[in-house]
Amino acid sequence: MDKELVFGHQKPDTDAITAAMAFSYFQNQLGYETEAVALGEPNSETQFALKKFGMKAPRVIETAANEVSKVMLVDHNEPQQSVKDIDQLTVTHLVDHHRIAGFDTAQPLWATLRPYGCVSTILTEMFREKHIEIPADLAGMMLSAIISDTLLLNSPTTTDHDREAIEYLAKVAGVEDYNKYGVELLKAGADVDSKSDADIVDGDAKTFELGGVKMRIGQVNAVELEDVFKRQDDLEKTMKSLMADNGYELFLLLATNILTSDSQLLVVGDSNLDKVEAAFGHKLGDNKRMDLPGVVSRKKQVVPPLTDAFEG
Amino acid sequence: MDKELVFGHQKPDTDAITAAMAFSYFQNQLGYETEAVALGEPNSETQFALKKFGMKAPRVIETAANEVSKVMLVDHNEPQQSVKDIDQLTVTHLVDHHRIAGFDTAQPLWATLRPYGCVSTILTEMFREKHIEIPADLAGMMLSAIISDTLLLNSPTTTDHDREAIEYLAKVAGVEDYNKYGVELLKAGADVDSKSDADIVDGDAKTFELGGVKMRIGQVNAVELEDVFKRQDDLEKTMKSLMADNGYELFLLLATNILTSDSQLLVVGDSNLDKVEAAFGHKLGDNKRMDLPGVVSRKKQVVPPLTDAFEG
Repeated sequence: MDKELVFGHQKPDTDAITAAMAFSYFQNQLGYETEAVALGEPNSETQFALKKFGMKAPRVIETAANEVSKVMLVDHNEPQQSVKDIDQLTVTHLVDHHRIAGFDTAQPLWATLRPYGCVSTILTEMFREKHIEIPADLAGMMLSAIISDTLLLNSPTTTDHDREAIEYLAKVAGVEDYNKYGVELLKAGADVDSKSDADIVDGDAKTFELGGVKMRIGQVNAVELEDVFKRQDDLEKTMKSLMADNGYELFLLLATNILTSDSQLLVVGDSNLDKVEAAFGHKLGDNKRMDLPGVVSRKKQVVPPLTDAFEG
Repeated sequence: MDKELVFGHQKPDTDAITAAMAFSYFQNQLGYETEAVALGEPNSETQFALKKFGMKAPRVIETAANEVSKVMLVDHNEPQQSVKDIDQLTVTHLVDHHRIAGFDTAQPLWATLRPYGCVSTILTEMFREKHIEIPADLAGMMLSAIISDTLLLNSPTTTDHDREAIEYLAKVAGVEDYNKYGVELLKAGADVDSKSDADIVDGDAKTFELGGVKMRIGQVNAVELEDVFKRQDDLEKTMKSLMADNGYELFLLLATNILTSDSQLLVVGDSNLDKVEAAFGHKLGDNKRMDLPGVVSRKKQVVPPLTDAFEG
């Protein structure tokens, strides 16, 4: 059997890196020859977890077809989120928790998709079903990935499967108080002061077209929202420049307090502000912001009300 | 939870019908409220199995959105093979052994895809992993589906998973000699005399465009190939009429002897016959046919060499 590479999406977060490591380990136990790689360097949160559990970051690749003909994808399936030469590769395996979009294959494949909060949760169940032991260090990384994706089980994307996996992994990893560790981990990823303006507004941003209006929606985690908004003038300049370059009519930045699970939304744009206000039932202040108490998930709590307001 | 419908592809074969019945049963055990339905009447092979194991054919539906908003798909994912109002429905679950093509979802879903010979094999493993007992009559249907899809384990699409599932299901179903039952089942589906000319040439046909040449490739199972070719003049008339109506340049009919696992290929068309001959390394006789010993799978043994010859 030829060697295969296993990797998550571009701009990898803790789950994209960890799921590749975990699925590669899993497949090697089953007799495949695989190597976990990444489509980018680990972010500060992932680095914190790797250090804590004494693991090495996967090698970063630019292309894959120069090394292998077959690959296994985790935590993504849309081609534009994958390695840039994905069209030259055969995907033999997929483990994911996103919608399916633009993912066509020439041949049948192995795929396990579940609507859970985190791919590492799906993988935890796969290990347990096959009675394959998870090494303690890898369990620590998988625990970290679930904490990261679910904001310590506070995101509405969280399922009972994630809750059960986190309890199980904490035991295997020997983490006595995963709430305490979780706050440390999230804080490591929410160190706003170490991030550039572009990183804050666009590092985790996605483009949406709702009711014919092209908008960019970014999200940044922080321990104190003041750490974000003390730089608001500079952030707005970066947002306006990205809007001009890319034709976004609106740029929304969701700043999320990871300790309280509340957010503030900064909205930059000249039109359609009334629709954004209608979407959330709040007025924008003179500072162009609105409080969104209890909102932490762009996918579940921001995009759906915007879709209703712009397309309803 | 709202009720959901579970169904396989149009022109259902034994696996499409059975997988819907089995997955619906499985999901109901897990607490969902589902009903297995079908996108067409069972064929003669499926009817034989239903009678043998005392089960009722699922209700046939034309559309689904008039009844439910959510559905579960088995044994297909391409929209054009599904219910005609599939674009108005949310697919929450998918169990399949085909390539992914044109299957986009708005939301994350449950999907279990395996490159096995039969969906009923995947489902057998799912039942066993969850420790859900398979009722004897349902096990008999699932056994029949695997026999049908793998031509009694003779097709090159057969995997060790299919072999293991068939042994297991035969025990659960109380079928002492599954080889003996398998031949009876395949014979029931290979009763060529009861089929119309259009059924024989086009009942299981698919369209391919290879190297710019649009061709139709049908397949029919028989106990004696003479049962097919004693009607060759009439079959050719039907093939030519379908070619004129649909713009096929070539029409290939693979007639497969289910007892010997050999085939003959009948080729109708005015050009590119040399490429068909090159594909298989055999000459067409004056009767427009060639022997293809050991060939039983269109997907694995007919389309790939044709692709090489027409596009290589």
